[in-house]
Amino acid sequence: MNASASARSNDSRAAFVTACTDVLGAAHVLTNAHDTAPFLTDWRRRYTGHACAVLLPADPQQVAAVVRLAREYRVAIVPQGGNTGLAGGATPDEGGGQAVVSLRRLNRIRDVDPHNNTITVEAGVVLADIQARADAEQRLFALSLAAEGSCMIGGNLSTNAGGTGVLRYGNTRELCLGLEVVTPQGEIWDGLRALRKDNTGYDLRDLYIGAEGTLGIITAAVMKLHPAPVAKVTALAGLASPHAALDFLAMAQRHAGALLTGFELMSDFSLRLVGRHFEQMRYPFAEAHAQTVLLELSDSESEEHARALFERLMEEALAQGVVEDAVVAENLAQSQAFWDLREHIPLAQAEEGLNIKQDISVPISSIGRFIEETDALIAQAVPGARMVTFGHLGDGNLHYNVQAPEGGEPKQFLAEHQKRINALVYEQVHAHRGSISAEHGLGQLKVDEAMRYKSPVEVRLMQTIKAALDPENLMNPGKVVRWNGAPRRAEEKPS
Amino acid sequence: MNASASARSNDSRAAFVTACTDVLGAAHVLTNAHDTAPFLTDWRRRYTGHACAVLLPADPQQVAAVVRLAREYRVAIVPQGGNTGLAGGATPDEGGGQAVVSLRRLNRIRDVDPHNNTITVEAGVVLADIQARADAEQRLFALSLAAEGSCMIGGNLSTNAGGTGVLRYGNTRELCLGLEVVTPQGEIWDGLRALRKDNTGYDLRDLYIGAEGTLGIITAAVMKLHPAPVAKVTALAGLASPHAALDFLAMAQRHAGALLTGFELMSDFSLRLVGRHFEQMRYPFAEAHAQTVLLELSDSESEEHARALFERLMEEALAQGVVEDAVVAENLAQSQAFWDLREHIPLAQAEEGLNIKQDISVPISSIGRFIEETDALIAQAVPGARMVTFGHLGDGNLHYNVQAPEGGEPKQFLAEHQKRINALVYEQVHAHRGSISAEHGLGQLKVDEAMRYKSPVEVRLMQTIKAALDPENLMNPGKVVRWNGAPRRAEEKPS
Repeated sequence: MNASASARSNDSRAAFVTACTDVLGAAHVLTNAHDTAPFLTDWRRRYTGHACAVLLPADPQQVAAVVRLAREYRVAIVPQGGNTGLAGGATPDEGGGQAVVSLRRLNRIRDVDPHNNTITVEAGVVLADIQARADAEQRLFALSLAAEGSCMIGGNLSTNAGGTGVLRYGNTRELCLGLEVVTPQGEIWDGLRALRKDNTGYDLRDLYIGAEGTLGIITAAVMKLHPAPVAKVTALAGLASPHAALDFLAMAQRHAGALLTGFELMSDFSLRLVGRHFEQMRYPFAEAHAQTVLLELSDSESEEHARALFERLMEEALAQGVVEDAVVAENLAQSQAFWDLREHIPLAQAEEGLNIKQDISVPISSIGRFIEETDALIAQAVPGARMVTFGHLGDGNLHYNVQAPEGGEPKQFLAEHQKRINALVYEQVHAHRGSISAEHGLGQLKVDEAMRYKSPVEVRLMQTIKAALDPENLMNPGKVVRWNGAPRRAEEKPS
Repeated sequence: MNASASARSNDSRAAFVTACTDVLGAAHVLTNAHDTAPFLTDWRRRYTGHACAVLLPADPQQVAAVVRLAREYRVAIVPQGGNTGLAGGATPDEGGGQAVVSLRRLNRIRDVDPHNNTITVEAGVVLADIQARADAEQRLFALSLAAEGSCMIGGNLSTNAGGTGVLRYGNTRELCLGLEVVTPQGEIWDGLRALRKDNTGYDLRDLYIGAEGTLGIITAAVMKLHPAPVAKVTALAGLASPHAALDFLAMAQRHAGALLTGFELMSDFSLRLVGRHFEQMRYPFAEAHAQTVLLELSDSESEEHARALFERLMEEALAQGVVEDAVVAENLAQSQAFWDLREHIPLAQAEEGLNIKQDISVPISSIGRFIEETDALIAQAVPGARMVTFGHLGDGNLHYNVQAPEGGEPKQFLAEHQKRINALVYEQVHAHRGSISAEHGLGQLKVDEAMRYKSPVEVRLMQTIKAALDPENLMNPGKVVRWNGAPRRAEEKPS
């Protein structure tokens, strides 16, 4: 850009910010560095961007007005919810020309319909608030993840968040019935349907879900509720290998059917790391086991029923040698203690030092081979590297993380080996027809890798959709799909 | 079209058919009227079209080759599976210029992976064959509907078919993990992922599902399997009103959670019609009840467990006056007899004479009011008209059908009142924020109504997607979305 074009562009941004102030009021247009800072760095502190303004509209009409102004002044928009994303999808670029649109003032629960098992919420409602409101109606809102106290449902939808309830209830996508979206043209699409069945045209809802704000801004949603279970009981099982864990999963599903709501894998080293850094968290078995599985049953009958079901399952699994040892939680406190073990793995990793994080999925049947092969490849490439393998085995989703060798310097380890280990893991994922981002999305962190591993046909389809719906490339550009903003028709080759 | 343009167009079609013969072999290009007839009339015999050929490719590569030829010669393509659709989506128009592409030779089950609970099938596999294969692996393929002996999975996906398992397992959409699709450009998109979690870009899968072949041709899919339940038990309950049925649904969900796999409503008149035309089908209660609900439990423990659960539920429901009477099936034969009652309603309707059929959905909580209001409106508009109300209450999906007055002449009744009654029902559906096609799709039957009831924003979004992915409008034109084929950009007003 030459100097005069740059000056014109700065003028245009200033005019945009002024126009937004007219619409939103000065209090809701943040421009000074102190006010905007919390919106410009991502949760994991990997990215810090700049913005011409952080805009805080109050309702969908104001969001639509802001988008129309963005079009008029050609300012790119970065939508943001609780800013807890793990792939930098809600952080603007470093140019300073983009505007962050925070949805946090759209925080109304518009409606709860217990007979329809639905709740209608605006994008800025915090996940835990939806759970609490469902609970008050004797219903369950089944989305649950570590950031639930601060993440917002609009962000959950835009990244199709996963979490611990997916095995039974699905991802955020499966929990959504309808959306309200502001299009890149600044119009409001009212798709707030509360229907279990509706076959009247293209599935726009699922196109916006997981699009990370690149096709429009989700402003509200109708989400599914479930009858609240009367009891949740957890258990731990010690096993010899991931292969045994797979056999055990099939057995547990046969015994428990849809009552099985959790099936989490934790490697021996993951649990030892927890014990090392959190003294009160004791290894749950007398003897060591290569793998530990945490199971959860959600029962609509009674705690006794769930416990009896667990007893029968464990009896068969022990008798058949699938499981080496097992313990069923005796009360709520012990159930919580089992979950605490699982949830302290990432915290223990942080205590142990910087590490390489993965969020991958493969077909469930391939998990055993995937872990064996990848462990061997990494051991060969980086002797001493310590794999911290845990995750949602029932969904085929592993956090296959890698820690520096014992006593090694974590920063140096990352600088030297992160790229190589990532490449190695992604190649393995690709070979097993898996996903390099199972539940975190692409954002800016993995967009280039995704473009590389997807087929040219798929990349072109994504670019075609982006170009058609957002022809001026003003909605969260650079996230999810690489596209240079040039017009594209379906028959062109991908850029 | 003037005479010489028409002649050119005929030449072009002839050249297309010749080129297809080179690719597929003469045996798989049908042109004579006797051979093509079964492909040119829809299941309900509402539409009969003409085609320049019926093409029978053997694999995705041949489908892609046919689509590339269709582009070259500018011939429109109508994909077809088992030809059991209820909205004319697989029937060509009357012009004779379109080609039917039947997927029935793509009938391989490519893979079954019991540990991943998935099955990979080609578009032409008959639904019942997938169910049987899953059964052989001690798994359940949960899609089940009346046409399952002849409908094909490609058609189920393209119309996002519903059926009797939706309450627990979802529509066809929720049962699909990945697709293989031939694009309108004649390329093959390999999206055959077998993953429970994959957040790496736009959800192309769900865009093709329910698009009725207007955005590409589905050639294969990875479908979810579930652990097979060990017992299915059904029961009938007699109730005073649809409102009571709603209270009963909430109670049943609280008791049974995910074990509740069926909750079907049948009005008193529906069951009386069955009794009238099928002597062996007796009304199941000693006294008359305004509504009857059929419940099904699918249990992974035992038949005794399911039966005990039903006993507890019915006890509470009777004690609270929610239910007037109840009977739990004592064996498989009686369970089947209960389902037979339900399944004979459309057959009894046919025996009674031509009638007006609806496939609508509303929020479950609105069903009581919807039925009351609509019954009253129709009674006023067409005195004596007999409503045959039944359907998947647990999904909010009713077949709200209307029969001529007792002794009336059905043909004359339809000619005089069908349009008016449809309009009245659709207005009611619209007022309750429901869907005019819950599980059958739009096809050519309801495309104009859908365009009328959808917002201009939604119609334009659909047209924009159609124009971007199929810019030459050669994929099943005229179905699902009205679009004249002119280029369209996102900012234009809908045509």
